[in-house]
Amino acid sequence: MTTPDNRIELADLRKMLHLAPFHRWLGLEVVDLTEAELIVEMPWRDEIVSNPVIGSVHGGILSALIDLTGLYTINALGGTARATADLHVDFHRPATSGPLRATGRVVKLGKQFSVAETRIEDAAQRLLASGRGAYVG
Amino acid sequence: MTTPDNRIELADLRKMLHLAPFHRWLGLEVVDLTEAELIVEMPWRDEIVSNPVIGSVHGGILSALIDLTGLYTINALGGTARATADLHVDFHRPATSGPLRATGRVVKLGKQFSVAETRIEDAAQRLLASGRGAYVG
Amino acid sequence: MTTPDNRIELADLRKMLHLAPFHRWLGLEVVDLTEAELIVEMPWRDEIVSNPVIGSVHGGILSALIDLTGLYTINALGGTARATADLHVDFHRPATSGPLRATGRVVKLGKQFSVAETRIEDAAQRLLASGRGAYVG
Amino acid sequence: MTTPDNRIELADLRKMLHLAPFHRWLGLEVVDLTEAELIVEMPWRDEIVSNPVIGSVHGGILSALIDLTGLYTINALGGTARATADLHVDFHRPATSGPLRATGRVVKLGKQFSVAETRIEDAAQRLLASGRGAYVG
Repeated sequence: MTTPDNRIELADLRKMLHLAPFHRWLGLEVVDLTEAELIVEMPWRDEIVSNPVIGSVHGGILSALIDLTGLYTINALGGTARATADLHVDFHRPATSGPLRATGRVVKLGKQFSVAETRIEDAAQRLLASGRGAYVG
Repeated sequence: MTTPDNRIELADLRKMLHLAPFHRWLGLEVVDLTEAELIVEMPWRDEIVSNPVIGSVHGGILSALIDLTGLYTINALGGTARATADLHVDFHRPATSGPLRATGRVVKLGKQFSVAETRIEDAAQRLLASGRGAYVG
Repeated sequence: MTTPDNRIELADLRKMLHLAPFHRWLGLEVVDLTEAELIVEMPWRDEIVSNPVIGSVHGGILSALIDLTGLYTINALGGTARATADLHVDFHRPATSGPLRATGRVVKLGKQFSVAETRIEDAAQRLLASGRGAYVG
Repeated sequence: MTTPDNRIELADLRKMLHLAPFHRWLGLEVVDLTEAELIVEMPWRDEIVSNPVIGSVHGGILSALIDLTGLYTINALGGTARATADLHVDFHRPATSGPLRATGRVVKLGKQFSVAETRIEDAAQRLLASGRGAYVG
């Protein structure tokens, strides 16, 4: 899927990603696209906090990141994902600082459905959340 | 769980809900609490859009609503939910207008973890998304 | 979906259910079909045990029951489910005696896929497991 | 986790696995345990078929294999998994011949909960199903 001039693909991916107002609000950046992975990064912003005592990110924000990273992973790595059919997220550890880095991998590219799995880590590479989405082609 | 003076409980629930900066950003309101259900409403805001062509709400926002409604449902109806262990969401139909109404129900109250299920409907009572969370006590 | 002569539909459903060798091994019986629910019952058999100390049913057996009850619920109540796309199961309590009763309900009938949720109870009506499947039409 | 005399650990794991009557019925074998993976194999048997026309394995059997492989993966690789809290399975392709090979990997070892993911492949290494379980410690 990667081309000789990979930067062009990355630039296109960034444009597609930023079409969504919610993605612009999240401040998402496409960090890298390899033959096996798409990496998306999200900066900190104070509105995403759930528990103000420990300053942890809301599970819905982590879910959004897993959902969207999986969808763009499918589309960037040879499949077609138009919408999310369903999403499963496991929360492993409170996310208390940014940036958050999401790494998506294809599980299965299919005609009707594709599945991708995504891991979210903090800057110290600690696993914060992980999950998988099933996407309609 | 409801008391003779139910409005006080609702007021407390609203305060708890609004401790989270992300809940304030979402503009959440507790609409009702019965013996079996907690109803939470979320107004429209343009930043939550995913697909700008059809103006549909991001799956991560719907996931957030299912996650948080389930957690407060457990806490409001006799259980203890401190954090979400995992979340499963099915997306049924694009959500293209607000407000969104989330109705949470207890599936199982447990010592170690509890499970709640939540349905999100639009103003025309069409089912947009539904799912379940497992919450650590 | 139910007809004046409901027994004929139930008889057809039983035949369809028993086409699967694994369903015959499980000894499944269709107990009832209403406008909203399909109820399937499974007797005890010693080979389904996971933990021999407490004599509890294997989670895979409960998963099978949730999977198949949801699929037949979709087909019995106006939808088309040819195969399971994905399955989510929450285990609430060890199942230590039979029969097990599974009650399926439609969450959403769709063209591409449908979602059903199923609860499994023991003879004392204690909730043992519950979950949902997404089925391809 | 692997010891100099790895065969002893494997032998113990086999014994533990075969304590469950359902595992004996499935004919499970522990194939390998590395620092990162546990591999379990299941032979064909005719009673596990769901669709008799194409001769495909029942989703509940695949779910059982994902559930149990994840649980033993956690226990074999440094964690403690006493029971499954919940299970998510994606079905990618009909499984029409044996043996089925399940490969489990740890996602997260935790005190309260651990998460493992498992892939099932056929003899031609085609991915048939995959999923993840959350296990109570």
